[in-house]
Amino acid sequence: MVDTGRIADLLKARKPGFSLPQEFYVDDEMFAADMQAVFATDWLFACNVAEIKRPGDYITLEVGGDSIIVLRNRDGEVKAFFNTCRHRGSRICLNESGRVNRLVCPYHQWVYELDGKLINARQMPDGFDKSGYSLKPAAVEVICGMVYISLSDNPPSLDRYRAAVTPYIAPHQPDRTKVAFTSTIIEEANWKLVIENNRECYHCAGNHPELLVTLVEFALPDDSAATNVFKGLMDRSVARWDSYGLPHQPADGGIEFRCIRLPFNDGTVSFTMDGSPASNKLLGDFTEPDLGSVRMFRVPNNWNHFLADHIIHFRVLPLSANRTEVRTTWLVHEDAVEGVDYDVERLTEVWIATNDQDRILAENNHKGIRSKAYRPGPFAPSEFMLANFSEWYAGKLDDFVRPPSQRLVAAE
Amino acid sequence: MVDTGRIADLLKARKPGFSLPQEFYVDDEMFAADMQAVFATDWLFACNVAEIKRPGDYITLEVGGDSIIVLRNRDGEVKAFFNTCRHRGSRICLNESGRVNRLVCPYHQWVYELDGKLINARQMPDGFDKSGYSLKPAAVEVICGMVYISLSDNPPSLDRYRAAVTPYIAPHQPDRTKVAFTSTIIEEANWKLVIENNRECYHCAGNHPELLVTLVEFALPDDSAATNVFKGLMDRSVARWDSYGLPHQPADGGIEFRCIRLPFNDGTVSFTMDGSPASNKLLGDFTEPDLGSVRMFRVPNNWNHFLADHIIHFRVLPLSANRTEVRTTWLVHEDAVEGVDYDVERLTEVWIATNDQDRILAENNHKGIRSKAYRPGPFAPSEFMLANFSEWYAGKLDDFVRPPSQRLVAAE
Amino acid sequence: MVDTGRIADLLKARKPGFSLPQEFYVDDEMFAADMQAVFATDWLFACNVAEIKRPGDYITLEVGGDSIIVLRNRDGEVKAFFNTCRHRGSRICLNESGRVNRLVCPYHQWVYELDGKLINARQMPDGFDKSGYSLKPAAVEVICGMVYISLSDNPPSLDRYRAAVTPYIAPHQPDRTKVAFTSTIIEEANWKLVIENNRECYHCAGNHPELLVTLVEFALPDDSAATNVFKGLMDRSVARWDSYGLPHQPADGGIEFRCIRLPFNDGTVSFTMDGSPASNKLLGDFTEPDLGSVRMFRVPNNWNHFLADHIIHFRVLPLSANRTEVRTTWLVHEDAVEGVDYDVERLTEVWIATNDQDRILAENNHKGIRSKAYRPGPFAPSEFMLANFSEWYAGKLDDFVRPPSQRLVAAE
Repeated sequence: MVDTGRIADLLKARKPGFSLPQEFYVDDEMFAADMQAVFATDWLFACNVAEIKRPGDYITLEVGGDSIIVLRNRDGEVKAFFNTCRHRGSRICLNESGRVNRLVCPYHQWVYELDGKLINARQMPDGFDKSGYSLKPAAVEVICGMVYISLSDNPPSLDRYRAAVTPYIAPHQPDRTKVAFTSTIIEEANWKLVIENNRECYHCAGNHPELLVTLVEFALPDDSAATNVFKGLMDRSVARWDSYGLPHQPADGGIEFRCIRLPFNDGTVSFTMDGSPASNKLLGDFTEPDLGSVRMFRVPNNWNHFLADHIIHFRVLPLSANRTEVRTTWLVHEDAVEGVDYDVERLTEVWIATNDQDRILAENNHKGIRSKAYRPGPFAPSEFMLANFSEWYAGKLDDFVRPPSQRLVAAE
Repeated sequence: MVDTGRIADLLKARKPGFSLPQEFYVDDEMFAADMQAVFATDWLFACNVAEIKRPGDYITLEVGGDSIIVLRNRDGEVKAFFNTCRHRGSRICLNESGRVNRLVCPYHQWVYELDGKLINARQMPDGFDKSGYSLKPAAVEVICGMVYISLSDNPPSLDRYRAAVTPYIAPHQPDRTKVAFTSTIIEEANWKLVIENNRECYHCAGNHPELLVTLVEFALPDDSAATNVFKGLMDRSVARWDSYGLPHQPADGGIEFRCIRLPFNDGTVSFTMDGSPASNKLLGDFTEPDLGSVRMFRVPNNWNHFLADHIIHFRVLPLSANRTEVRTTWLVHEDAVEGVDYDVERLTEVWIATNDQDRILAENNHKGIRSKAYRPGPFAPSEFMLANFSEWYAGKLDDFVRPPSQRLVAAE
Repeated sequence: MVDTGRIADLLKARKPGFSLPQEFYVDDEMFAADMQAVFATDWLFACNVAEIKRPGDYITLEVGGDSIIVLRNRDGEVKAFFNTCRHRGSRICLNESGRVNRLVCPYHQWVYELDGKLINARQMPDGFDKSGYSLKPAAVEVICGMVYISLSDNPPSLDRYRAAVTPYIAPHQPDRTKVAFTSTIIEEANWKLVIENNRECYHCAGNHPELLVTLVEFALPDDSAATNVFKGLMDRSVARWDSYGLPHQPADGGIEFRCIRLPFNDGTVSFTMDGSPASNKLLGDFTEPDLGSVRMFRVPNNWNHFLADHIIHFRVLPLSANRTEVRTTWLVHEDAVEGVDYDVERLTEVWIATNDQDRILAENNHKGIRSKAYRPGPFAPSEFMLANFSEWYAGKLDDFVRPPSQRLVAAE
């Protein structure tokens, strides 16, 4: 139902360095194209392995019309399946998370092993060949405990990403954490506006008082607008990080991903209202609470902060052209004890406030773009990551609208 | 707005014996086709005459965008009209049921007789010819008190159906009942999933504890999976029914309808939590409370149970591709006294629970089918009635998408 | 996305003197056409200047996907702008009304003067030319304090309208009022049904008991159905109005507007439950409370009553094919004191009740028109203003669907 010729024309009308033409943000057909061109082809951040610690633990997530089950199988491996019974199509797992011995469809009790094989289908005739009715698998990659899935039968390689980011995030040992809290909010805005909102801190000064207690607004060490205060802070931080052997220079992620370590404001070490640590039990083998944070983003749906004392994953899933789910997961050391080592309210209040402020910004952005007075506007220098995101997105769409014979190999 | 070529292609892709391709369940265009090909051409169960006992009593029901008034006129006949004033189109009857002397449009008080004739239109000029502005009638057939309507100007014959089912249901005297209770629920599922859910008891064991106190799970006396317990029960039941002269063999309904008498579980006689009678005042001339139940279904929107002590009609009306209204009506003898002969909660609790369980099953079925991993799956032998329903449905669609010159005469 | 050929065919099917074919009221594509052909080209009533008394006072209103800011600038002039920031498109004013010193986008704090000029865009590079990024203006006309806006770059002239209605409404001094109350309701009906409902009082007798205490049902002094009582009332009223020099004959508005002074029922002077004045502080220089009311309507979205003691503006804004916002504003003399000169409940209760009755009528009208049994019906003589409205509307659509080279100059 997608008119690829129309999309190709709109792509031609796009001006690099400017926000996208209106249709990309508000049009139902364009949303369908996004789901096919982006969300059905690329890798999507799903969860942390801490959410599925034991065999049989599962979570589900919705990607457009698809529900995906991500689980740990009996061998301890992470697997993913489309949550659709091969009998008459019922959803199998009805909850957002849970634990099962086997996957049993609630409709007629067809039973699947944790590897997706159909092992029992009562009342089916003798000649019924169960081997033809396994659950459809989805591709899975795990990077330092972060689970990525792909709905594509032929997903692109994640090798370059894995190699680049592992040195930054492995010391924080994301795979040895536990979930302290999760929050799911719905934003009445296109998913690209949610991502764009996250890709710049140009809006921070006017909107995020809690966050700016600790977060520095500069995205790069050599930001041309950087103040002397920031430069001094950066120099001192780099010296310490180098002494610990922690990487911090921007990774070479191009338009696909970003990974960098940046300091917190002087005198603060964590995303709390006063900048003091949120958890006394530090991650990994850290003994020093002031490590700044590794800021890691990957298209199309995930950004993260890795601190000395906790990790935050953000997961974005589009629901429709004008609705997007944002799930935030706060992780602490797997041995940290709630009420002793950390307090959930202290740990979460800064980003709960920030997420809600961002929701309102994205929603008003979406509303304003619906106007026929909307014209794509120019990015400020501090919005350089939005230019990257637009390039990447346009490339995905461009590939999608080409005749198959002319398609590029999926970018990396 | 319906692309009949696309539907024809999808019909070709359909595999008999398997659930339908995804589009038939979730697509808005296919829903529009269903409304035209099925709900605008066939007979639809509307209500029992007990709901419109006296002249001027009416009910309304919604079939897609159409509201239909079903009423009893001054001669005691059942008539149906489109609920749209011929002046500027306002709805006339605003309630689900009521009693009127004449049909008066609330907007400008145009007055229609109970036979649909416009008899007063104040302020219209002298030359205004009221005879050209009668309400548009809808076709009506009454079978043993069950009212069927058709929105078609040329509906198919119901003669074969009437002749076949009357011997089964007439002894229960559905036309000498009163309404004990009605329940209307909305299911977030395609109407065909609601019907399919009803057409098999493969799902009963895992989902309907209240119902299975009394309901036997076998759909036919000669079910190849039937247990010896069931066979013994069946033999004893048949001997008794034969002695009363009550028909019980499956009627020859083909893919259009089903009518059969089946026993309740041994020791139980009615749909109550303990299997004892729900009403002490038996229907018709019955003196024996243990008559099993006549299970009667007719495409596209009605199934029923006729017991010795009460009758249940189920009416299905599609609201959109993913929303369906299910109305259940419990009828007892017209002289039964609430609180004396029957208790509403006892009478209704089994099917209220069962309907809600079925709603959840249909909704999860619908959700799972939205996935691109959905593939039409094979029916179990116990799902033979779904195969029938699919054949019938495909036939209706097939007829709809042919050029008019090639259309078959409507089935029957 | 609008199929102009289809609309042209539907226009040909339209019968003058009858309600419109179904599609015009219920179809999403037709709604899109209405927004382009009518609401994006013509003048729309927005508010009274009393709502934006001081420099920096603003209101916002939504016209389809567009939000418009109407404000008073530093020179005391009324200006209007599209509420979409030229940076990345965020809404700027988030409230329905307020007061600002400058227009500051909440997202990245771009600052616009009250004349729409961008005066500050922090972080933008040195070469950034702010003069290319003013807010897009919308056209504004003020007639005796009534603010009309147009989203068109080339709106038609309002001169004839202004000249015709000013003598009627200027004596009421709408520009020297204050807002006593506003009410906003949503009607689940097409905007044209809301207008049509307002354009006749054929429905009043059956539906508006509160209103008919005071309102005469005749729309013209020479109504052929007029009673002797009305004629007597009219003669006495005309004599008095003439003695005061107040115009009262129907203005020559054709199908574009209507302006006329009509009396209240004998012994009543204002829209209150008992017909006594609603405000003791009369408007303008009036000393006589019994001046009837000037009834003024202009396509497509505004009708009004101008009384001796208060003014009511009604503003209609379409939200979708089946949803319409109706905002009612009650204005009293700018020096009237609440609780002393007027009581809000007394002032508003008649039209609050009437609006709600009209909402129900329009909603049931919309529902009935969705039926395939709907046929355009004949207007009664008392519905002559609906015939006018249909002619005007069909003309707008007709102009819209012509090839540009064949388009008429916009009417007026």
